Amino acid sequence: MRTTVGIIGAGPAGLLLARLLHRAGIGSVVLEGRDRVYVEHRQRAGILEQGTVDVLRAAGAGERMDREGLRHDGIELRFGRRRHRVDFPALTGGRSVMVYAQTEVCKDLIALQLADGGPLLFEAEALAVEDATGDRPRVRFRYQGCDDVLECDYVVGCDGFRGVARKALPPAVSRVFERSYPYAWLGILADVAPSSDELVYARHDRGFALLSMRSPSVSRLYLQVPAETRPEDWTDDAIWAELERRLETDDAWALERGPLTQKSVTPMRSYVHEPMRHGRLFLAGDAAHIVPPTGAKGLNLAVGDVVTFARALTHAEETGSPELLDAYSATCLRRIWQAERFSYDMTTLLHPAPDATAFDARLQLARLERIASSRAAETDLAEAYTGFPLTVAGNKPSA
Amino acid sequence: MRTTVGIIGAGPAGLLLARLLHRAGIGSVVLEGRDRVYVEHRQRAGILEQGTVDVLRAAGAGERMDREGLRHDGIELRFGRRRHRVDFPALTGGRSVMVYAQTEVCKDLIALQLADGGPLLFEAEALAVEDATGDRPRVRFRYQGCDDVLECDYVVGCDGFRGVARKALPPAVSRVFERSYPYAWLGILADVAPSSDELVYARHDRGFALLSMRSPSVSRLYLQVPAETRPEDWTDDAIWAELERRLETDDAWALERGPLTQKSVTPMRSYVHEPMRHGRLFLAGDAAHIVPPTGAKGLNLAVGDVVTFARALTHAEETGSPELLDAYSATCLRRIWQAERFSYDMTTLLHPAPDATAFDARLQLARLERIASSRAAETDLAEAYTGFPLTVAGNKPSA
Repeated sequence: MRTTVGIIGAGPAGLLLARLLHRAGIGSVVLEGRDRVYVEHRQRAGILEQGTVDVLRAAGAGERMDREGLRHDGIELRFGRRRHRVDFPALTGGRSVMVYAQTEVCKDLIALQLADGGPLLFEAEALAVEDATGDRPRVRFRYQGCDDVLECDYVVGCDGFRGVARKALPPAVSRVFERSYPYAWLGILADVAPSSDELVYARHDRGFALLSMRSPSVSRLYLQVPAETRPEDWTDDAIWAELERRLETDDAWALERGPLTQKSVTPMRSYVHEPMRHGRLFLAGDAAHIVPPTGAKGLNLAVGDVVTFARALTHAEETGSPELLDAYSATCLRRIWQAERFSYDMTTLLHPAPDATAFDARLQLARLERIASSRAAETDLAEAYTGFPLTVAGNKPSA
Repeated sequence: MRTTVGIIGAGPAGLLLARLLHRAGIGSVVLEGRDRVYVEHRQRAGILEQGTVDVLRAAGAGERMDREGLRHDGIELRFGRRRHRVDFPALTGGRSVMVYAQTEVCKDLIALQLADGGPLLFEAEALAVEDATGDRPRVRFRYQGCDDVLECDYVVGCDGFRGVARKALPPAVSRVFERSYPYAWLGILADVAPSSDELVYARHDRGFALLSMRSPSVSRLYLQVPAETRPEDWTDDAIWAELERRLETDDAWALERGPLTQKSVTPMRSYVHEPMRHGRLFLAGDAAHIVPPTGAKGLNLAVGDVVTFARALTHAEETGSPELLDAYSATCLRRIWQAERFSYDMTTLLHPAPDATAFDARLQLARLERIASSRAAETDLAEAYTGFPLTVAGNKPSA
């Protein structure tokens, strides 16, 4: 097989990239190791930044999102028995976020790609990227029991943290930055209307809790738990009771319970691989960087990466100049490090660490108090939450 | 001896409090264990917040400050070979800071107090505060070889971190919050004009450096050093050479050298004692809280405490209501915790820790980049640097 851009991975990064290239008249093939049902149902993020919403609309993938997604104009912070709402549009000149599950984004993009796009092969397991620094890089893969080779002009690794693409960058040119956290998230999906219209981030001495949602009838809730926790360590009743404590239910506000449809533990990790390019191999999304989920930045960073790549390649095809492709890694990393910083800050702001001192606890409360009392500090948070602008070297920021 | 307010310590907190009380017609006696020459020459802070400047002027202690002090409208941040100036008035609606050494503030306040104030006794060593919860607390002290007792309506401990006042608060009612840092500041005073009109805060992989000044002809410079460093470990030449490296001298900017007149090592510590009141004993300044010097907040917090106490006592004398005295600790602590937070953030923003990972280094650079690129983040810093407002429960913020 042969194509212009070989895309490894049919998560939101790979699928959106295929769509953007299709609309630019550039051919691609997407290889995905899992089957379609799996890809369409794996639970991941659910908060789309303003810029991500704009990109999906511009890519023709916004129709169902605009119908079913929930526009959110703020979040609530709870701490020390106080409640403070952060008003996004008022602080950022009109920006907001959209609650629309990653699974739904993937379903929409898969349907579009299968309808009029280039090949999208499920159960096509990428085995290795070869000759990344040559003119014709190749992806070796296994499909329907046979080994095959995809010859490309460019390969983009959208195959996540455990994928094969990153392994093709030699250690001598690679630098890894990472941090782990001494806690994890126990997450549940529940068939019950969310007890709040907006997300509630709670910092409690017992640990962090987050009330989120996937739709008007499906709640998504999280509890900070020790890193080694297994889902079966918590009964459903224990989860609801702990959520009530940390979210501080009272006479004015109750947490509605409902049947759990999923229960899982998410580790917390920060990770960046530099550079994000080696010859004609480019990394995008989780293949190059991981953020802890507190800032809801993972999916949005992946979108930024593939938008940057699609623009750079389009520019190269139109002008013959590789300048934007050459700037890809540095362009993406500037935004990624801001998101890494924000995700780290939101995480350490809200999660009491197991070894936290009384000083650390007071520091968290003073930070939250600062956000609640300074428009500048609150704006800093609102700008970051609704998203850092997508920029391309030499271009103006995207809408 | 007998007085309304017994003040332990003739640092800026105790001296300013005596002045504020004098102007309110309330009697006080200041006991200071050291001699006048020592008090007038111990090198401490040198940055006065806008609110501190306003208070000193209102107390009639601003004349020489306004003549000799240097108004500063910004600071410069250096990091990753970049330079970024933070413009205070533009970001805060006109606020600035004043460079005027603590030693000069003390000289001015001592002269005023000796001219027309209550007794100010040097070499009067406070030994203990007694009967803090009774109607007539006492300070036992030793003066001119004799033990004596100062009977008071109120005692205010302005006697610093190692003073006796805090020891009079029983452990059962006390809570301590603290944090130490794995580095210290090697500070020098040099007889040379400052090489920059404004303070320069430099984050370098080799460590933090700060270019500051005491006057147009005296430079004050600091280097981050390991916590166990002794001043004699560094030759003068080694200090200048290291300052040049970290401040990144180049063709456009050089660091002028001059003779060193002082060389010392300052430890870095965060410390808060809660509450700041026990009966008729009140703590103010370093007696209750310590900040690392990076945010230049120590002196300014002390000023906030004694202004709060003076207002509260004046209110009590005028109305008979103890409400503001009862609110003293909580009122001060709200501001103190914001300053603790800011001082911690400025410190950890700019000092690479000895065990810092590559991720930590990138995080520092991303934070600095955020300040340099977001007006909201920059305003947050400028507001905190120029000072948190002095508020009294039920009163409007001070000018």
